[in-house]
Order: sequence, then structure tokens, then C-alpha cells
Amino acid sequence: MAEALRIIPLGGLGEIGKNMMLFEYASQILVVDAGIMFPEFDMLGIDLVLPDFSYLRDHADEVVGVIISHGHEDHIGGLPYLLGDALPADTPVYGTPLALGLIRAKLSEYPLVTDELDLRSVAAGSTVTVGPFEVEFLAITHSIPDGVGLAIKTPVGVVIHTGDFKFDYTPVRGSGPGFARLGQLGAQGVLALLSDSTGSERSGHTPSEAVIGPALDQIFREAAGRVIVATFASLLSRVQQVIDAAARHGRVVALAGFSMVKTAEIARELGHLEAPEGVLVDLGEALKLPDNQVTIVTTGSQGQPEAALARMAEGTHRQIEVKQGDTIILSSTPIPGNEEEVSRLINKLIARGADLIYPPLATVHVSGHASQEELKLMLSLTRPKFFIPVHGELRHLHAHARLAQQLGIPRENVFVVEDGAVLELTAHRVKVRKEKVAAGNVYVHGKGVGDVGRRVMAEREILGNNGFVLAVVPVNPHTGDIADKPELISRGFVFQRGDLMDRAAEAVYHALKEGKVRQRQAVIDRTQGLLTRFFFEETKRKPMVLAVVSHCE
Amino acid sequence: MAEALRIIPLGGLGEIGKNMMLFEYASQILVVDAGIMFPEFDMLGIDLVLPDFSYLRDHADEVVGVIISHGHEDHIGGLPYLLGDALPADTPVYGTPLALGLIRAKLSEYPLVTDELDLRSVAAGSTVTVGPFEVEFLAITHSIPDGVGLAIKTPVGVVIHTGDFKFDYTPVRGSGPGFARLGQLGAQGVLALLSDSTGSERSGHTPSEAVIGPALDQIFREAAGRVIVATFASLLSRVQQVIDAAARHGRVVALAGFSMVKTAEIARELGHLEAPEGVLVDLGEALKLPDNQVTIVTTGSQGQPEAALARMAEGTHRQIEVKQGDTIILSSTPIPGNEEEVSRLINKLIARGADLIYPPLATVHVSGHASQEELKLMLSLTRPKFFIPVHGELRHLHAHARLAQQLGIPRENVFVVEDGAVLELTAHRVKVRKEKVAAGNVYVHGKGVGDVGRRVMAEREILGNNGFVLAVVPVNPHTGDIADKPELISRGFVFQRGDLMDRAAEAVYHALKEGKVRQRQAVIDRTQGLLTRFFFEETKRKPMVLAVVSHCE
Repeated sequence: MAEALRIIPLGGLGEIGKNMMLFEYASQILVVDAGIMFPEFDMLGIDLVLPDFSYLRDHADEVVGVIISHGHEDHIGGLPYLLGDALPADTPVYGTPLALGLIRAKLSEYPLVTDELDLRSVAAGSTVTVGPFEVEFLAITHSIPDGVGLAIKTPVGVVIHTGDFKFDYTPVRGSGPGFARLGQLGAQGVLALLSDSTGSERSGHTPSEAVIGPALDQIFREAAGRVIVATFASLLSRVQQVIDAAARHGRVVALAGFSMVKTAEIARELGHLEAPEGVLVDLGEALKLPDNQVTIVTTGSQGQPEAALARMAEGTHRQIEVKQGDTIILSSTPIPGNEEEVSRLINKLIARGADLIYPPLATVHVSGHASQEELKLMLSLTRPKFFIPVHGELRHLHAHARLAQQLGIPRENVFVVEDGAVLELTAHRVKVRKEKVAAGNVYVHGKGVGDVGRRVMAEREILGNNGFVLAVVPVNPHTGDIADKPELISRGFVFQRGDLMDRAAEAVYHALKEGKVRQRQAVIDRTQGLLTRFFFEETKRKPMVLAVVSHCE
Repeated sequence: MAEALRIIPLGGLGEIGKNMMLFEYASQILVVDAGIMFPEFDMLGIDLVLPDFSYLRDHADEVVGVIISHGHEDHIGGLPYLLGDALPADTPVYGTPLALGLIRAKLSEYPLVTDELDLRSVAAGSTVTVGPFEVEFLAITHSIPDGVGLAIKTPVGVVIHTGDFKFDYTPVRGSGPGFARLGQLGAQGVLALLSDSTGSERSGHTPSEAVIGPALDQIFREAAGRVIVATFASLLSRVQQVIDAAARHGRVVALAGFSMVKTAEIARELGHLEAPEGVLVDLGEALKLPDNQVTIVTTGSQGQPEAALARMAEGTHRQIEVKQGDTIILSSTPIPGNEEEVSRLINKLIARGADLIYPPLATVHVSGHASQEELKLMLSLTRPKFFIPVHGELRHLHAHARLAQQLGIPRENVFVVEDGAVLELTAHRVKVRKEKVAAGNVYVHGKGVGDVGRRVMAEREILGNNGFVLAVVPVNPHTGDIADKPELISRGFVFQRGDLMDRAAEAVYHALKEGKVRQRQAVIDRTQGLLTRFFFEETKRKPMVLAVVSHCE
């Protein structure tokens, strides 16, 4: 059998291939992206979630390079955990200038020998050779500038990986997607297309970023006081649009929030953000001006509790106190799972007297991902033999697969797989191997990577939902008999009132005494069992119960 | 000063007046609705949330009756906690036949003297006199049949409370909203309108329930195997539409899930649900038929883990195993906060081979709440002097207030207030009192009502996110000196590996020994402080640390 190309999607909390894709040929592995996810509602205490790097760790010497499609956290955030750990710190990392700028800034926060890094800048439109692969960086549009899709020329054929994309005919800056080049590749023959499925349930065509400008103009025209715009630090075209609108309406713009300031700095150096002379000012300077000359751009539109906007809502921001007359724009929509937090944020800001503007009240946000008509266009331009929907949950992959079938791609040429699946491609067929690669979620909490697993999470769930009760059982060290009623300490269980704890202690004392329970482990087991039942009967709750023995004469 | 009418909204997790509204005149209190909310993402362990009944408890002898607008949980679910506790069990409760049927079924599950209940049936269109109030039940449409709005005739004027509503011109059953009567009331003069704000951010007109029929027909036409429809048990018009579609396509319908079966039973008795002879069958019977003759209607469309659909997704349902060929319709949209759970449910069912159909892939659900054009119509028909938006978070109330102002209601006649606010109305003015009534959230967990407060919740948050470490410090009872290294027990903190715990125990031992710490409380404080710092430095996590002293010779 001829050598096959192996494609392996990894990571992404059920969004297949979101954080990482592996392309492997003749024992040479090309890694595309190394991102993180943010924890879901029931992942208690977890800071972030990494893809499982164990397959890469086991094959580290076969890795020929890492290619980054764009500078979003879910595509670059895993690099600090990958480089210098699973892979050597000097593994070549290829990306566009903005992506590399953001990576450099990120890695400088981690205790890594940043000197060893081997970051290689590649402009959209260029091609690099990495091991057996020739990788062409394709211009696309997305909610961060300088993002690319990839045309990966392999010995078995050309594979196109779209990365995150939308087709924006009128982007705020730059020349937009390379429609013609995609068509040319399609005409020459594409073996397989891996395409972003995030928006596959949405009909129509995602609006251009350009629609935001007029909406901002109207808000700026009507605002009596300050305008505060919250958006993603990486959504630089949005920041640009706010700067442009502010300049048109005679306002300065100040940036608030660490990541907003930092990202804008990198973007300005690289020419992805421009401001007329005097428009961008320091926050302190802006706050000295009359309110109707001030615009503030800040982070925290997703309700993140540590971000600048949340601190304004709580009244704990050091410099900005939200007040009547302020117009606050949330230039984003809640990421699924953040709805309740965003809603609380809006309510708190309204309670402080601000006018709040957010979708759908005005068109102050559009998605960065392609909708169904754009996905059809991508399929129609590239005309792949095989289609592998990626970047989305199973539901999105299925919706995307249905679109492909509507366009005439035979069902048997469409491959919906889960993370860790190994797809083997030759020029003529795709085979999904039976064995999967390890692809679970790896939790990061504090300094710990992967040390919070199923058991610790189960304990956290019990503790979080029910609290615990600790029984310190005083035992006569000579006889083993219980010497007194146990001391009961509870946390997170009930607000202590009435005689619940006294009766529980009494019950333990009598049971151990009358049962003549003397052996240490028996004392512990009996106490735990008895208290668990007692509390469930009394309260219909199931606190974790722990007993320890204390000696007492 | 002449006697004023007092209106007090209560409860609803920030959705103002959602669960309860009080109308008070001359020390006579009319209660409208007594509902519950389901906990938000960070209310760990909580089963449900009640309004604060303490004002009612303190004024129980002034309560003249409870009126229920419709049979949804957020309007009736609090009755088992209100009657026989804050209020006498025999307080008169007025409602339409379906609402009372559902209430009776609900109360029969609680240990209450159901014999004492005084449930009084009132048909839509009728008027009852309750204390100083004449209350007319107004026909409206909503996502449960037999819901009403209220025209409350008070000594200071007529107040209209819409309840939850939409304006459906073509409801599945019944004659629809009483447009003409609303107009007549408006022409005669309405002092104040309290109107449902849930859909106030949504432009246009909510589609009629009638649009679901054709969508179901298409799905039934194309389905090769079983059709499984998940929706709310109380959404009886939807169940009716499924029965009608199934009958048209030669299928039987079986109901699965306790609440679905029970609600349908009550609804059939009252004529709110009809099925042609032989169409409604037992689940067991249906499962013996060929797949293409079977429809199953079930609960669990919100991803509730205990519901029938979740058990099908997990493969733990006793009778139904989801398989290739099944078409599963989620005839609902996720309630804010449930998005992640619903998404997981969809993915799991797809992984079992089913075809999933849910909004927006097909029009299989419409909202039960009015959109902006309907809210404008309600305002225009009733022409109130004063407008008080209710049933929604602050954001929704503000959006609704803006609509009212667009229609020419002066800003000073629109009152956006929070729960517990006391509005005093005379025929000429509204005054918002400075003092509020207690209106916090009362948590129910197991048997406990209100015993989980701020402190217990804070402990649960720490325990859930970080777990705990317990140190049992062995102390010589004669000298007070530490006798050995403490025993450390942790739960929910780290998966124990390496020597972290050994080093921690060692550190405590040396610190206590060298510091000559002997006094019992000092031993505890010192151990807890030291371990808290030690674990934070080592792991950047903050487990709860507890120390207890054990005597040891």
C-alpha cells in the first residue's frame, strides 16, 4: 500500500478539531494551531482546557513544525503548554505577523526560555515548505485581521483547511478573501476540504463588518455623554470602526483593560490599526475632557468578572464610574454558556443609569464565521473530492455535511468524525481507522495541568452542591470506646440552626456506644454511614461526610 | 390623602414581578401568581428559588385571595410553599379550570391537607370580586391554554395586568385573545398597564402557533423511522399539533415522561387536548408497531438530566433506545442558561445515529411571548395613563419602556422598578416609595427552605472550585506539643501524586515544633494559615483548609 496522509482532529470541548489538527505523512507531523477552550458551566474551578498532547509527546521527534492560522486564544492559547513541554521549545512555529506578535506577547508571560523560540513569519499568499508539506497561506476574512486558511500540498493531493473564516466582500481593512485563488485551486483539483462549521446552522450570508459603521454613527450622533464600547481585544476591525466613528464625531478614544491596550499596541506596530493624530489618548487624559468628547473602548463584553466592564458594573473600577448619560455599547453577542453572565452585566449597568445598546437592539455586532451560503460558496469554489467538516460540535458538523450533500458531494465522501479520529487519505479514498488517538480534555487549574481528573471533579460536584460534614470522634485510647459525643463541623451544608447537629452527634454517640464499636476503621465507617443517612433523612441533601478519630481519656 | 392602591412586584431571579405581584388597597392584599424560578448556573445545589414571602407572612390576615394567571411553574410552583405556611391553607385561590387542574395535581404531591384547599374556578371572560377588587379574567394567548390577563377594577381606577401573553390570531385551539374587550377597556379608561416584557427586545410580531403545523407535516412526510418530539409538557397546543400531524400521516402517538402523561390527562379531561380514536396509545403498545407508524412525545427538550429525552441520550431509558432512522424534533428553544446542556443533548443523540431537527433548522418552535409589535398593540388598545413594564429583567423592562415612549406615553408616566418596590397609585399619580419590601431570592434545597444563604453559598463556591484539605494534628495531651506529622486528607483539590502532601505535613510539623505552639486554638490557626499559604504557593489554588487537634501520647 502506498503511504497515506493521516489527518487527526484534536481538542475543543466537543468542537471537533477546533484547537488543533494534525497532518501526518511518512512519520512527519505538521501541527496546525494549538489553542485552548474556556471551561463549561460544570467544570468547577477549571481555568482553561487544553487538547490532549500525549500523542504529540509520544511522537515529538516526528513533528516538523506548527502552523498557526490566526491569533485567537482557541488557536494559540495552548502554545505555552505545548512548547518546552510536549514539544521542544525551538519547534518552528509559522504564522502571519499579527498572529506571531500576539504569540510573542503571550509567551513572554510564561516562564519559558523565550530565546529558544523559533517563530517564522509568513505573509498571507506565501508558501512555506515544512517537512513533506508545501503550505500556502490563503487570505481569508475573520474577526481578527491577518487570519489565513491553508492549502496543504501533500504527496497524495491538496488539502484545504479553511481555518475560522467568513466571506466578507467589504472588510474594514485589507483586500478580503482570495476568492479567485480558491477557485483556481478548486479547478486544479482539491483532494479534501476541511471547513469551519461554526455557522452551519445559520441560513443566509453573514453580514460584512462594514454594516457596523452606520450603526455606530447613529449612536455617536445621539449620545449625550460618554460612549463606552465593550468588545473583544482581538476584534481589531471593530476597534478601528470605533476610532473612525469617534473621529467623525469629534471624540477622542481611550483604551481600557490590559489586553485591549496590549493588543492595540501590537496591531498599531504592524499596521492593523490606525488612528488620526490626537484621537487615541490615555484614559486619564480622556476622563478630564467633557463627556460628549469621550469614547472608551474596553474588554469584558462577555461578562468576564475580572474584566474592565465588570468592574465598572460593580462600581470597583479605579478610574471609571458609570453614570446617567453614559451610552454603553456591547459590540459582541454572548458566546454560548455566557448568556446569564452577560445579562447580569447589562442589568447592573442599566441600574447605574447608563443607556445600554447591544444586539439585537442595534446592529453593533456581526459574526466572524461563515453562514450557510458562504459555506456553500467555499465548497463550490474548492470542489473537493472528500469533505471533512471541522470546527464545531457534532450538531454543526452534521448541518454542514447536509449542505455538502445538497451540493452533490456523495454521502460516502463526507466524513463526520470526532476528536482523536484518524483519517487516512490516499488520492482515491479515505479510511477512518478503528483506533483513535487520545483526545480527552486536559484541565488546567492554577499551576496544575492534567492533575484534576474525573475523581477530583466528582468530589468538587458533591462539595459544591452539598458541602461537607466533618465528625471528630473522641475515643478512649485504651479501650477504643467512644468517650463523648463527636464534634461536628460543617461547611456549605446548612446554615446551622436548631438542634440538627446536636441530634446527629447524639445519634452517633449512642450507636457507637451501644454497638460497642471499638476498632478504629469501624468507628470511622459506622460514623460516616450513620451521618450520611441521618442528614439525608432530615434534609434530603447529601453532604460529603468524613469522620476522624481523636483520642481522649 | 385619599387611600392609594399599592402594587408590589416580587420574585423571579431579577425578572421583575415574574413570580408574584401584590395589589393592596386599604390593608387588603390580592396576590397574583405564586411561582418559582429554576436556579442559575452559580446557585450550586439549589433545587428551586422562591420569592420572599416574608411580607405576606407578616400581613397574612390581610390577604383576600390569590389569583393565578396561568398554569406554568413560574406562576404556580410556589403555592405548595405559600399555602399552609406563609398563608392559611384555605386562602381562596382563583384560576381558570386548567390552571386549577395543574395546581391540584401539584399540591397532591406535597404533604399538605389538600382538603383544606379553597380552589375557585373562573372562566376567561368572567369577573370575580375579591375584597375591594373586581377582577375580570381577560382571554389572551400564551404557550399554555387557558391563560388569562387581568383587568383589576380598584377604587382608584382600572389596572390591567397582561400576564404572560402573545397575540396569536390563529391559535391551535380556542378563539384567541379578546382584542375587542381590551379596546373597550382602553376606551373606558385604564389607569395603569402592567405588561409582559419578556419579548421586548425582539422586533416584529411573534409567529402564530399555526406555523408549526406545516413544518411538522414536512418532517413526518420525510421521516423513515420513528418520530420523537420533545417539548414542554404544558405546551399543549404543540402536543395537539403533533397528534394532528401524526394522525394525518397514519402514525400513533405515545406520551413518555411523567409530567407529559399527567398534564395530557388533565388537559384531555378539560377538553384542551383531543385525539382521534386510536391515535393516542401506550408507549409499550407503540413500540411494538413498525417504526414508521410511531410518534413519541416526550419531555426534556431543555436538557434536564432527569427527563426522558436525556435518558434516551445517555442510553439509560428503560423502553426507548435511540437508533439510526429515528427523527428527533426539539420543539423548543433553550431557555437562557440551558444552551450548553441542550447542545450536549443534541450531540449525544446525533452520536446515537438519530436525525436531529431543532430551531433554526426548521420552524418547529415559536415563542409564547409577545414581540415589539404586539407590545405596541397592547399599549395602543389599552391606552393606559401609567405604564409599568413587568415580567423581564431590567434590560427587558427598559426596552419595553422605550417602546411606550415611542408611542407617546410621557417618560414620567413610565415606571421601571425592581422587585420589592412599592408603587402607590391614585387616580392622578404614581409614587414609588423609598422603603422597599423584602424581595430577595429564597433558595430551596432538599427539605430546606431559606436555610441556604449567602455564607453557605460562598462556602459551596470555594469547595466546588477548590475542594478542601483537612489536617488532623496529633498533639501530646500533657504538654500540648505536636507529637507527629499531621495526617492530611483532601477532597476535590488535587489528584494526589508526588510528595505534595508529605511536604505540607512536614512543614506543619516543623513550624509547630520550632515555634513551640502549644495552645489548642493557636495550633489550629497556625496550621490552617500555614497550609493555605503552602498550597497556594505550590499549586496556585485555594482549597478550604481545616485543622483539628487529635490527642496522642
